[in-house]
Amino acid sequence: MSNQVIPQELSDLLSSTALAHMATIGPKGEPHSSPVWFGWDGEHIRVSQTKARQKYRNLKKNPKIALSIVDPTNPYRYIEVRGTVVDFEEDPNKGFIDEMAQKYLNEPKYPWSKPGEERVVLIIEPEHTATM
Amino acid sequence: MSNQVIPQELSDLLSSTALAHMATIGPKGEPHSSPVWFGWDGEHIRVSQTKARQKYRNLKKNPKIALSIVDPTNPYRYIEVRGTVVDFEEDPNKGFIDEMAQKYLNEPKYPWSKPGEERVVLIIEPEHTATM
Repeated sequence: MSNQVIPQELSDLLSSTALAHMATIGPKGEPHSSPVWFGWDGEHIRVSQTKARQKYRNLKKNPKIALSIVDPTNPYRYIEVRGTVVDFEEDPNKGFIDEMAQKYLNEPKYPWSKPGEERVVLIIEPEHTATM
Repeated sequence: MSNQVIPQELSDLLSSTALAHMATIGPKGEPHSSPVWFGWDGEHIRVSQTKARQKYRNLKKNPKIALSIVDPTNPYRYIEVRGTVVDFEEDPNKGFIDEMAQKYLNEPKYPWSKPGEERVVLIIEPEHTATM
């Protein structure tokens, strides 16, 4: 399957090692923003999240999300993807965060895990995009 | 005057030529995110905006905003600034967008103005910061 929302001419940004900046809605309805690692399988965007973080609680309450990704080689080329977190997948074996460490750090294991840290994978369905 | 919200050890990010990723609240309460140029005078963050853009309409309706800024030399160092657009300053002579062109493009005039484009300056008061 592949997602029809992402314009083909910008789909390379979703396979790049750029950071995505993730916007969520906070407890009082206010916007939050933070940089994240992300994965893309042609259908969903995936982001690792610890259950202790504010973003996780934000998304459990309101699963609407936006990600903006700038081309690392051209700061005037970017894509904004808006969508919904359609699932929170448990990641007890840290398989996904290790995959992200491979992608972004070229290391097979995520080096910054903390004891007892519980991770989930945000499964994000793109619904709309915007660009320049 | 200077703003007491920004931690001194991260204040250099606000003077850098990094892009900020700006999160706003859309018409249905959903988050939006896009990269922007920004200025900082030690008290307010300033962002140029055309009146035709969705972000401007979003902020007129809900002035809450968040900006995340990553250190261009270290992707694991960043600041998130949350705050409120406390004023929308008209910029009829394009003074502020030209200032941003000088900062980001090293050109005295913003080269991409469109005929009839109306610009305002978002005056953003930082209220809270988050970091790694």
